[in-house]
Amino acid sequence: MTTYAVIGAGAVGGFYGAKLAQAGHDVHFLFRDDAEHVRANGLEVLSVDGDFTLTDVSSHSDWSTIPQCDVAIVAVKSTANADVAPLVDSVVRPGGAILLIQNGLGAEPLFAEAAAEGVEVIGGLAFINSERTGRNQVTHMGNGGLTIGAYRDGYAAAGVTEWMTTIAADYEGTSVPIQLEADLILGRWTKLLWNIPFNGLSVVLRASTADIMGNEQSTELVATIMDEVIAAAAADGRELPEGLANLMLEVTRTMEPYATSMKVDLDNGRPLEVESIVGEPLRRGLSLGASLPVIETLYRELCFINVQLTAPATSG
Amino acid sequence: MTTYAVIGAGAVGGFYGAKLAQAGHDVHFLFRDDAEHVRANGLEVLSVDGDFTLTDVSSHSDWSTIPQCDVAIVAVKSTANADVAPLVDSVVRPGGAILLIQNGLGAEPLFAEAAAEGVEVIGGLAFINSERTGRNQVTHMGNGGLTIGAYRDGYAAAGVTEWMTTIAADYEGTSVPIQLEADLILGRWTKLLWNIPFNGLSVVLRASTADIMGNEQSTELVATIMDEVIAAAAADGRELPEGLANLMLEVTRTMEPYATSMKVDLDNGRPLEVESIVGEPLRRGLSLGASLPVIETLYRELCFINVQLTAPATSG
Repeated sequence: MTTYAVIGAGAVGGFYGAKLAQAGHDVHFLFRDDAEHVRANGLEVLSVDGDFTLTDVSSHSDWSTIPQCDVAIVAVKSTANADVAPLVDSVVRPGGAILLIQNGLGAEPLFAEAAAEGVEVIGGLAFINSERTGRNQVTHMGNGGLTIGAYRDGYAAAGVTEWMTTIAADYEGTSVPIQLEADLILGRWTKLLWNIPFNGLSVVLRASTADIMGNEQSTELVATIMDEVIAAAAADGRELPEGLANLMLEVTRTMEPYATSMKVDLDNGRPLEVESIVGEPLRRGLSLGASLPVIETLYRELCFINVQLTAPATSG
Repeated sequence: MTTYAVIGAGAVGGFYGAKLAQAGHDVHFLFRDDAEHVRANGLEVLSVDGDFTLTDVSSHSDWSTIPQCDVAIVAVKSTANADVAPLVDSVVRPGGAILLIQNGLGAEPLFAEAAAEGVEVIGGLAFINSERTGRNQVTHMGNGGLTIGAYRDGYAAAGVTEWMTTIAADYEGTSVPIQLEADLILGRWTKLLWNIPFNGLSVVLRASTADIMGNEQSTELVATIMDEVIAAAAADGRELPEGLANLMLEVTRTMEPYATSMKVDLDNGRPLEVESIVGEPLRRGLSLGASLPVIETLYRELCFINVQLTAPATSG
């Protein structure tokens, strides 16, 4: 049995950790202020795949009481990465792995830098619609797939590693489908193809996905941004599957109005994940010679909005 | 003495019309619903250059009672142009002139098309800070200059025309400085250099000029947009004075927080002048071969916001 630590046990980490615990793995959750409450009441998962409650949860308020585990699942907001990265080593055994479930680019190098020699950093891309709906409750409204790919210096393709296979095996029999991605950054660019335009525009335009797809000009803007993401990925040596942009547009057009994670953060006055979702991909693309004027515009607008969020303007 | 009709007697038209009336010219104002009120109470101008009240105002609720004048001053919002242009002929005598005081591009061709043969269309650029502050009151807070230039097909340079000289002479002795612009579109591009970035970004970012200049990323965005305006003007055969963009940035940085006209329209739920201030310059620049990706992005965002203003989203 693999042992897991879950750092950032919210809508995403709470769900993926609970699934492993339900499957019988030894999972230790960092719940901070809610640790006592979870220990007393269990961790409740309300899920489209079936509700369940974990009792006897190894629930921690502090890093110091979490044992060294085989794998640390890190699912904090990327805005907390600089604080979290130096601490993760304390909960991963030598030769273990860090599974970083986040959107965007740029987190893996940070965690790889901070990790002990021999600890593998694996990127995780969650395709899930879930929410933290209570101090000890996560609600899972749809999907749930997890794509994982090991990180190598400079995002070189790593192939399928032993830790990737182990994690995938641990999820077997759960409702979570695991995809193994031999080239992590290809997976990241693919997800960014949706995340950059829809997270970005949902904040700048204060709009849901349905609002964006219901207007010709904003739809055109999404398509233009997608073209630039494809160009950035191409400059990075990764060819995104032909027709994927159009497919994403079609799927988004037909899905229920959806508030992106960045829009939810905006509405709650929380810092936006501008750097990981837009800034890092922009800088990587530009440094590789791609021309990305629309993403750059979006980035600058988001930076402005992000600052105003935490330091509101005094003028009208 | 020249006779004038003022169509759109608001913050701008009311002010420039009142100045002519005060100087003794025969001025007929279209005040619509407020016509009776102005007739009874006079037109009050509270101005940094000195307050005054016009009594005995030729105040009209309808086009039909306005006599044919030498010059029709049109100062409606550009969003009303399509409705107004066909009606202006009825208040201009043969061989007269239409002075169109508006921001942006594209209005003159519309009015020239609708005008009778021999009527001269003159573009006016108001550098004024004024507000309609009551049914019969205009408050003038600062500046007041008016640049005028005659329109020729395709915005070819027209030189200084007789009507331009006449209008300038009529303003002599008032506090309004008139600039004669031999090349109307050069004047329009020059004003757009400020108007496109600041009107556009003030709406997208819900910000004052001070907010925009107080943030490095939005300031950078202004500079990038200014570069594109300069490129569009260059494609149009007009070289904007070197250093003007930087000068405008510096002046804007030091001025009081200012809500642009488009931001005021946004805050009041009124249609935005997106097409005249951003759309037309964009289309003209693109058709002449300029590369304008940032202005195009801004335009699409503004179109989205403009639609939402009048048809609010049903989703969160």
